[in-house]
Amino acid sequence: MFKSIPKFAAARVREGRKVRRLVLSCRKLLTERGQAAGASLARMTADLYRELDKREQARFFAVLRAEFSPDPTDVLAASQAYAAEPSAVNLSRLCVAAEPPRQELLRRLNRATGGTAAILRMRERLLELKRDQPELEAVDWDLRHLLSSWFNPGFLQIVRVDWHTPAYLLEQIIAHEAVHEIQGWDDLRRRLEADHRCFALFHPALPDEPLIFVEVALLDRMADGVSPLVEAQPFSHDPSRATTAVFYSISNCQPGLRGVALGNFLIKNVVDVLSAEFPRLKVFCTLSPIPGFAAWLGLLLKGADMGQSKPLAQALRAVASELGPDVTKIANDPDHAVERLASLKELLMQLCATYLMQHADGGEPGRDPVARFHLNNGARLERINWLADASKKGLRESLGLMVNYLYEPRAIEGNHEKFIRGEIVASRRVRGLALGE
Amino acid sequence: MFKSIPKFAAARVREGRKVRRLVLSCRKLLTERGQAAGASLARMTADLYRELDKREQARFFAVLRAEFSPDPTDVLAASQAYAAEPSAVNLSRLCVAAEPPRQELLRRLNRATGGTAAILRMRERLLELKRDQPELEAVDWDLRHLLSSWFNPGFLQIVRVDWHTPAYLLEQIIAHEAVHEIQGWDDLRRRLEADHRCFALFHPALPDEPLIFVEVALLDRMADGVSPLVEAQPFSHDPSRATTAVFYSISNCQPGLRGVALGNFLIKNVVDVLSAEFPRLKVFCTLSPIPGFAAWLGLLLKGADMGQSKPLAQALRAVASELGPDVTKIANDPDHAVERLASLKELLMQLCATYLMQHADGGEPGRDPVARFHLNNGARLERINWLADASKKGLRESLGLMVNYLYEPRAIEGNHEKFIRGEIVASRRVRGLALGE
Amino acid sequence: MFKSIPKFAAARVREGRKVRRLVLSCRKLLTERGQAAGASLARMTADLYRELDKREQARFFAVLRAEFSPDPTDVLAASQAYAAEPSAVNLSRLCVAAEPPRQELLRRLNRATGGTAAILRMRERLLELKRDQPELEAVDWDLRHLLSSWFNPGFLQIVRVDWHTPAYLLEQIIAHEAVHEIQGWDDLRRRLEADHRCFALFHPALPDEPLIFVEVALLDRMADGVSPLVEAQPFSHDPSRATTAVFYSISNCQPGLRGVALGNFLIKNVVDVLSAEFPRLKVFCTLSPIPGFAAWLGLLLKGADMGQSKPLAQALRAVASELGPDVTKIANDPDHAVERLASLKELLMQLCATYLMQHADGGEPGRDPVARFHLNNGARLERINWLADASKKGLRESLGLMVNYLYEPRAIEGNHEKFIRGEIVASRRVRGLALGE
Amino acid sequence: MFKSIPKFAAARVREGRKVRRLVLSCRKLLTERGQAAGASLARMTADLYRELDKREQARFFAVLRAEFSPDPTDVLAASQAYAAEPSAVNLSRLCVAAEPPRQELLRRLNRATGGTAAILRMRERLLELKRDQPELEAVDWDLRHLLSSWFNPGFLQIVRVDWHTPAYLLEQIIAHEAVHEIQGWDDLRRRLEADHRCFALFHPALPDEPLIFVEVALLDRMADGVSPLVEAQPFSHDPSRATTAVFYSISNCQPGLRGVALGNFLIKNVVDVLSAEFPRLKVFCTLSPIPGFAAWLGLLLKGADMGQSKPLAQALRAVASELGPDVTKIANDPDHAVERLASLKELLMQLCATYLMQHADGGEPGRDPVARFHLNNGARLERINWLADASKKGLRESLGLMVNYLYEPRAIEGNHEKFIRGEIVASRRVRGLALGE
Repeated sequence: MFKSIPKFAAARVREGRKVRRLVLSCRKLLTERGQAAGASLARMTADLYRELDKREQARFFAVLRAEFSPDPTDVLAASQAYAAEPSAVNLSRLCVAAEPPRQELLRRLNRATGGTAAILRMRERLLELKRDQPELEAVDWDLRHLLSSWFNPGFLQIVRVDWHTPAYLLEQIIAHEAVHEIQGWDDLRRRLEADHRCFALFHPALPDEPLIFVEVALLDRMADGVSPLVEAQPFSHDPSRATTAVFYSISNCQPGLRGVALGNFLIKNVVDVLSAEFPRLKVFCTLSPIPGFAAWLGLLLKGADMGQSKPLAQALRAVASELGPDVTKIANDPDHAVERLASLKELLMQLCATYLMQHADGGEPGRDPVARFHLNNGARLERINWLADASKKGLRESLGLMVNYLYEPRAIEGNHEKFIRGEIVASRRVRGLALGE
Repeated sequence: MFKSIPKFAAARVREGRKVRRLVLSCRKLLTERGQAAGASLARMTADLYRELDKREQARFFAVLRAEFSPDPTDVLAASQAYAAEPSAVNLSRLCVAAEPPRQELLRRLNRATGGTAAILRMRERLLELKRDQPELEAVDWDLRHLLSSWFNPGFLQIVRVDWHTPAYLLEQIIAHEAVHEIQGWDDLRRRLEADHRCFALFHPALPDEPLIFVEVALLDRMADGVSPLVEAQPFSHDPSRATTAVFYSISNCQPGLRGVALGNFLIKNVVDVLSAEFPRLKVFCTLSPIPGFAAWLGLLLKGADMGQSKPLAQALRAVASELGPDVTKIANDPDHAVERLASLKELLMQLCATYLMQHADGGEPGRDPVARFHLNNGARLERINWLADASKKGLRESLGLMVNYLYEPRAIEGNHEKFIRGEIVASRRVRGLALGE
Repeated sequence: MFKSIPKFAAARVREGRKVRRLVLSCRKLLTERGQAAGASLARMTADLYRELDKREQARFFAVLRAEFSPDPTDVLAASQAYAAEPSAVNLSRLCVAAEPPRQELLRRLNRATGGTAAILRMRERLLELKRDQPELEAVDWDLRHLLSSWFNPGFLQIVRVDWHTPAYLLEQIIAHEAVHEIQGWDDLRRRLEADHRCFALFHPALPDEPLIFVEVALLDRMADGVSPLVEAQPFSHDPSRATTAVFYSISNCQPGLRGVALGNFLIKNVVDVLSAEFPRLKVFCTLSPIPGFAAWLGLLLKGADMGQSKPLAQALRAVASELGPDVTKIANDPDHAVERLASLKELLMQLCATYLMQHADGGEPGRDPVARFHLNNGARLERINWLADASKKGLRESLGLMVNYLYEPRAIEGNHEKFIRGEIVASRRVRGLALGE
Repeated sequence: MFKSIPKFAAARVREGRKVRRLVLSCRKLLTERGQAAGASLARMTADLYRELDKREQARFFAVLRAEFSPDPTDVLAASQAYAAEPSAVNLSRLCVAAEPPRQELLRRLNRATGGTAAILRMRERLLELKRDQPELEAVDWDLRHLLSSWFNPGFLQIVRVDWHTPAYLLEQIIAHEAVHEIQGWDDLRRRLEADHRCFALFHPALPDEPLIFVEVALLDRMADGVSPLVEAQPFSHDPSRATTAVFYSISNCQPGLRGVALGNFLIKNVVDVLSAEFPRLKVFCTLSPIPGFAAWLGLLLKGADMGQSKPLAQALRAVASELGPDVTKIANDPDHAVERLASLKELLMQLCATYLMQHADGGEPGRDPVARFHLNNGARLERINWLADASKKGLRESLGLMVNYLYEPRAIEGNHEKFIRGEIVASRRVRGLALGE
């Protein structure tokens, strides 16, 4: 046993030279000497990480997991002492013993200029690796914990994005739009006209990179289809008469921030900002995709037994006889899709309501990821819209259907609480469509 | 016993109505419903705190201590599981169990606009209360932990303060200067002339409040007295010829950030900024007060036995025969002080070196708080200056003596490490002055 | 005669070496070569001027007058041609012939960085010299003409001055306040509280120098005395309830812009800005000094015969018997002034109204310079206030009296027109006070 | 005759209702009442103009010409008085009499918010009309005179345009690029890479509209063709090694500023800015089109007798036998152009040099408008480049040839002066190519 680094004996991973240098730099950063070196050592350490290739990165994370975890013996001793006497001294010893040294390491790395950006890139890679190495969750827990604290809404700034925004930021908006692809600069310009709004969140340590953004259309009714939203508007010169704000796209720009709640905060802030600018606005809703509907339908049609009720079974048979077992094929011929789907309108609306009202396998409310996001934020499942997105992607994912989720400021807290308790809050109309089980 | 809040049984403190409402609001903020409410509930909670008077604040902190601590049984169970199997799942359970719920409460409070400022005011009050109630250290530990993470150097901005700075910021500089009082706006203006620099650190969540600032004079030599620094300069029109930057004052503006290291980072950043602007600058040093010298001398003269060596005992006798047992009286008659001290110059320089080279009672290096700050930052005790501050305050605190600490960029890390190991790094000259023990 | 510079034969002034170099540089600037040299030659010329001492400046202006004027023969020929045939060609030839070459010289000088500032300093000096050398009016005419075109209101920016304004600008506000001296920074701060406003005009070429500024107090009535305006206010926390904006001070910062109308534009803009911010504001008025009242009274008391009417003569006798012939002496003993003036209140109010309603010697409406400024801007002489400024200066200038001029947006044009036709627009109350002639 | 408006008797133009209202508003603006109305009347007048259609605009300019000119009788009297006695009073009377009232009218219009922009739009229209109505030159003279004074270089700001510039400004750069068309946003982005620079001039009264901009490539040699300039660069990551700045495009954005010299000032400023940023830059040159070369050649080939010398005549015959009489046809088949032109290289280079060295018909130096612009700015005709722009446009205009003009800071003044005297400054190489006459 090597006396000088007893705690690190666990590090059995075979590391390359570059990884070893980085790990040494990390160890040094955690010492007192590293404390004095301040930002310069942090910068050097970040630079060493930047030089790693993909495989070396994987090794580094393995070391982070193995070596920079709390010492089980220490923690046990500290918690026994705290259980015996819950004094301030024992509590702070417990906190110190139980906190993985990784966290302090990351806090010191963050002192470097560009440190926050470097840590976000690290986590981006870690999330990739976690798919095959679930044990890396231990490292990711710390990253997520720190990022949630650092990207606290109180530190974020909401910024309006429009045609006066610098080009390098608009370019990122084009690149990251995940819901309705932006077809270049002319398309973007249309979406920034007077009757549209786009807002992004920024963190002061990343002034050049939006974190997340939302696109809003100002209308005189709840939108029932996507085309008027992303195309030129008839009333575009007088948004002050709008009564309804439709959030038709919300996109994350930072994969490294997955799991750090930003969308909820952004939506609520934008509701406040818009209410102040347009006193006539009364309705705040989304027009949202249903990414899992067609896939769920496909499973059922292929015979998956989900204990279907009789009406559900009947509806499925009717759909199958018209569309065949693979409903997503409808997307291959978008020109005739509308026609072929027409006769199934009522059935598909019912099936969709049934899907959206279903609980996930673990019993959690909401099967659909988009539904879960908005319901958890306190929105209500308000309306299902027929042929709202007849694009290839829209047909393939959800046979052209889309949903409005309604954000009613005074109901948000209550709705969220119901969701937490397992209830799916929906309008009478949608509930009426769902097929009994 | 109330089934619904079993954990809170420990809260035995008698609270008033306002405190109860605030505590209820804090509990709610920690629930899922509070999660959805987002910033609005946080804002409300911060408002409730703001309405408390000083006594109610004390009660609230008592509740924070009693109620929002980790549950000893939970922690013990979690650490036993982790000791048995240090898996990712067990680790994250441990982390959750061991972290005081106060931390998450503070993170959620921080979501409100002005949340960070509110938390700083809270800690300011807590530090007052801690003097008489050391058990509040448990609460303070969490505050300090979070503030250190949030006020990470990577998030701070360094800003030059000069005559182009808005008046409301300059006003705060005048108010917070702690070393050499600024006598109004004309005095401030002189200190912002071309051969002076002033830099402050800001946090993006507090854009209107400097955290800490440092004042620097650009000279052609290491300053041996304070008057030329704060008075008009002969070479003020060409600071580009300066070879020496003298940091003559460093002041904190946020009592709520006590214990969060900022000064170290500020000094090192200013060294970088100045080096870039003035390539001829070679020496970076301070001109610092010695706040504890006269008091220490007084103790010795009053007979305190510190196991004095013979030379020390002789020196003390000589001083006593000239100044009497209470050396601070010299400050009562500043006009004749210079004359009376003249004959004691050598002895006092020796005594001062002895004082500065002494370890604190606990064996820590550095008795003097200012010395400890700079030595811990990696500076070297470079020179003791005779009659460097002949003001009333200077005479009373240190019989007019001041010190230069030297920041040599390449030696900083090593010096800090020596300090950590218990060594006081000093120039040969200062070491030569110290009286053997 | 030197063939190459025939036009310059008129230059008979004895110039020194520096002036000669400057004049050569000016001549060159006007040539084609100067055109190509662009800003560099302009900068050099401005530098040469800056090196002149006061006497050399005087010589330079003499040359500007003698040498850079239009050629009488050319002008006559051009106007004869234009009279014979008013064609475009003949007109442009006339314009070229009649415009003094000084104007093009100044336009080219203005190309230099800092050119506009240099020209303002030039005019400042010229205005001093003009007092004794009225013939310099020829040069000043051109400067005033160009400055009026360059400082066109369309090019000016109105900026709010408050406690967030950089110190170097506030310093200029303190220095230039001409009506009620600002006693340092604390006094300034009071005048920038929530119930006060200060606005300044800036020109983009002089971003660091305010041109003119106005101070406004927001009140619930028309102010009848100066002290509440410049002192702390009881309602300072809610200016939104104010009904009346009192312009209590308007000061020029640029002596070189004398005669270029800025105050008129500033006042009207501030009325617009304040109306937009405070919808309850109904009354916009000034509280103004009467700088010439006491002097005028003195003249009459010393026997000047202005064809006084009987009531006027009686009033004068009464004043003389109480105050003696030199009324300004009252200012020597401000402590007893109030008492001594009390019995004369009605008479002095009448005399003041009489003074203000009087025409100047040339028959122009308004004797008093301040009255003339506001009446010409379209304001109405609204009210005379007794003991409104009991300061030494206030007593000496106007025995403590002050006036409110009222700016009623809809009446401004009409009032101005009446003023132009020779009428003094006053309220019924003031007219009632004036003693018939 | 109408007594009240005797001066306006000349106004014989038939005006419509809208034009009449505008003219009345202009007359009012020039009165004293208009003076007091200030910006509001100016704004109203500008609004009235904005409502005119194209024909009404023409009528309005006719009135401006007829009615707002100086009165010939007044001018004659004033110049006679000035000739008799050139006093200051007589001079200022002359200035007033000779200045067209239009100028004061425009100055007062300019007081309105957006006044400057309105006046630029007016002039844009006037320039169109002047083509058929040369008598409008009288009005244009005044506009040009005022705009030259207002858009004085001393008032302009030079701004770097890059990928951080707001999109609405970049959009204008794309729209106004007149030399090498920008093919959308991706193309623009390439031109704003690290080894390119783009600078624009702005006037403070038009902060949203660039006046003129220049595109520069940073290279290690003088560019001999256009393609490397507008395409991606090999050394784009280290422009600091560049020795040569090539100005490859300069474009005006404001047709209303035609004749107001801006390009000269922009180029010289950019030379200064680049010299400061890149100390290694030694050569500043253009790569410029020769818009008139092919047309001139065509004229000669069609037999125009310009008194050709023998070598010139021979060269022409050779070109004609290869390309036929209409040389611009070569542009119809760009794919084979290079091949067909190859054998004519030497002859065409000689003909081009001959063309560029020729004087215009009036004897002015420089036939080609681009040549005239740069030579007048003080540049030297440095090099003719073979097949430098093989685009369709390049072939049609100049058979693919382009020129480098060299800006040598120290030679600029001298070169300009030579140009003024009628000399075309060219390198020995270019002079050697020109065919003797």
